[in-house]
Amino acid sequence: MTIAEMAAAVLAGDRRALARSITLIESARADHREQAVELLTMLRGSGREALRLGLSGTPGVGKSTFTEAFGMQLAEAGRRVAVLAVDPSSARSGGSILGDKTRMEQLSRHPNAFIRPSPSQAHMGGVARRTREAVALCEAAGFDLVVIETVGVGQSETMVAEICDLFLLLMAPAGGDELQGVKRGIMEMADLILVNKADGDLLATARRTVADYAGALRLLRRRPQDPPDFPKAMPVSAVEGNGLEMAWAEMEALARWRREHGHWARRRADQAAYWFSEEVRHGLLAVLEREPAQGIMARLAAAVTSGEYSPEAAAQQMMRALGRS
Amino acid sequence: MTIAEMAAAVLAGDRRALARSITLIESARADHREQAVELLTMLRGSGREALRLGLSGTPGVGKSTFTEAFGMQLAEAGRRVAVLAVDPSSARSGGSILGDKTRMEQLSRHPNAFIRPSPSQAHMGGVARRTREAVALCEAAGFDLVVIETVGVGQSETMVAEICDLFLLLMAPAGGDELQGVKRGIMEMADLILVNKADGDLLATARRTVADYAGALRLLRRRPQDPPDFPKAMPVSAVEGNGLEMAWAEMEALARWRREHGHWARRRADQAAYWFSEEVRHGLLAVLEREPAQGIMARLAAAVTSGEYSPEAAAQQMMRALGRS
Repeated sequence: MTIAEMAAAVLAGDRRALARSITLIESARADHREQAVELLTMLRGSGREALRLGLSGTPGVGKSTFTEAFGMQLAEAGRRVAVLAVDPSSARSGGSILGDKTRMEQLSRHPNAFIRPSPSQAHMGGVARRTREAVALCEAAGFDLVVIETVGVGQSETMVAEICDLFLLLMAPAGGDELQGVKRGIMEMADLILVNKADGDLLATARRTVADYAGALRLLRRRPQDPPDFPKAMPVSAVEGNGLEMAWAEMEALARWRREHGHWARRRADQAAYWFSEEVRHGLLAVLEREPAQGIMARLAAAVTSGEYSPEAAAQQMMRALGRS
Repeated sequence: MTIAEMAAAVLAGDRRALARSITLIESARADHREQAVELLTMLRGSGREALRLGLSGTPGVGKSTFTEAFGMQLAEAGRRVAVLAVDPSSARSGGSILGDKTRMEQLSRHPNAFIRPSPSQAHMGGVARRTREAVALCEAAGFDLVVIETVGVGQSETMVAEICDLFLLLMAPAGGDELQGVKRGIMEMADLILVNKADGDLLATARRTVADYAGALRLLRRRPQDPPDFPKAMPVSAVEGNGLEMAWAEMEALARWRREHGHWARRRADQAAYWFSEEVRHGLLAVLEREPAQGIMARLAAAVTSGEYSPEAAAQQMMRALGRS
């Protein structure tokens, strides 16, 4: 299959071609990278645009259950839904949060859905960079919604925020106190906080948690890209399906407002500039991951750790070894 | 003054030489950098080691008042105290949080003290990298304690944590609720949380706040580099001087424990390796801040923002322009 054929198949919505092309962009091989850029360049002309939805939440909060229920609702309504996972822990272990496909059994079999587990790359930045390209492929393949799922740890949210149009935070019902230790930085990114498990015994707690978050959100500075009533908190039940339609309505309303006020296009343009810069920076630093630089770097680092060299003297030596001093 | 003379003067504790040598390491000129590395290399042999104390807290919490009272207490007791500021906002504005020297009027005039405002560099990473070197200079000059003061925003704490031996968080008394929106990540760095303004009308509130933080700290995972009773929260009053001696006793106890258990040396070795890597990364990326790369980068970024190029195609062009594709 040539790159042009692959591009045509992706544009035709062929899911196997989409899967293969994501594998291509995830490859670390230099010739694959050339092909990947060629493919992405070909597909840029499609003019198709999905709603890119970031979804974060600590493990156990029910992200997969939510994504399945939410995705099924949209898929059943005729929308095409892609789910991509960004999981830095899987990047470390080589595993994948969505490897266990049974967790989204229904959605993964739905003809309108496409699910892709987290790539098992060693490098968080790398995972996010490739995820952004996978999103572009899904858009070219005609998906209406691309969910980018991430676990609420470390830098993955910041990366995902630079990929998506809307950012969703899924939380569990809990006693008010510390707002479940949610990182404030993450809360500041959220467009919508959904308190899951608002059913059965937890319903009252979930409602109280929603009120807690709503109060906390009011304390945050208002962002210019938000209508007056956003960011919002609301209860959902992924298991019972409650609140999912309303959540989707809120997302659509927010997306519409941002489009109408020019924030949508501006954000996408800023994101593109961000990733351009990231790609260049990564390209420059990549030399350190190859021999002979990697070996020299390791030896100098050992000499620094043992106290033989100062960090700056060792850095100077390294720059000389790279021919850049 | 030759570099050797400057090194000798710093080792002799000459404060004007120390100030001049810090100016040298802050300089962006290539020849100055060479001299700075030479100076730092000469001073490495001093074998002197200060307690490096990171101090963070949101604006208005009384950091300067605390630093002055705390520093005066130690200076009066015969210890030599240096205060360095790392302020990313001053890096942007070109100003300095300690520019207004009157805020530490007493301490700045004390013969045992040395105060240095934040360098006005454009780049946060740059500020922190140079601050680390300024700390090394202060150590060589025979200071017993180096306080690295930073405001509680953004990435500066992470940087400061990679410089210091102990990390102090100064907080204001407040209603429990959201623990004053302190970033959890910052709290996880703290070895000691000091609740300031524990005097007059605020005394009771301060005590309650200490209990709140103590509770929150207990929820955090225990770190191997901590004795069982750390991290701790305690009340202080910078204005009345209450609790300052006790706080110092706690810091000394923690430092002693870490020395005895090998964590001290290990942390310093890890920090040195971190800064070696940072210096090399910065050295590689520095090409982007010089012409012609800077101009090409700006033109390509504009083309990406306008949608003319994809981020990856523009990055490929950039790497070719740099001769690294």
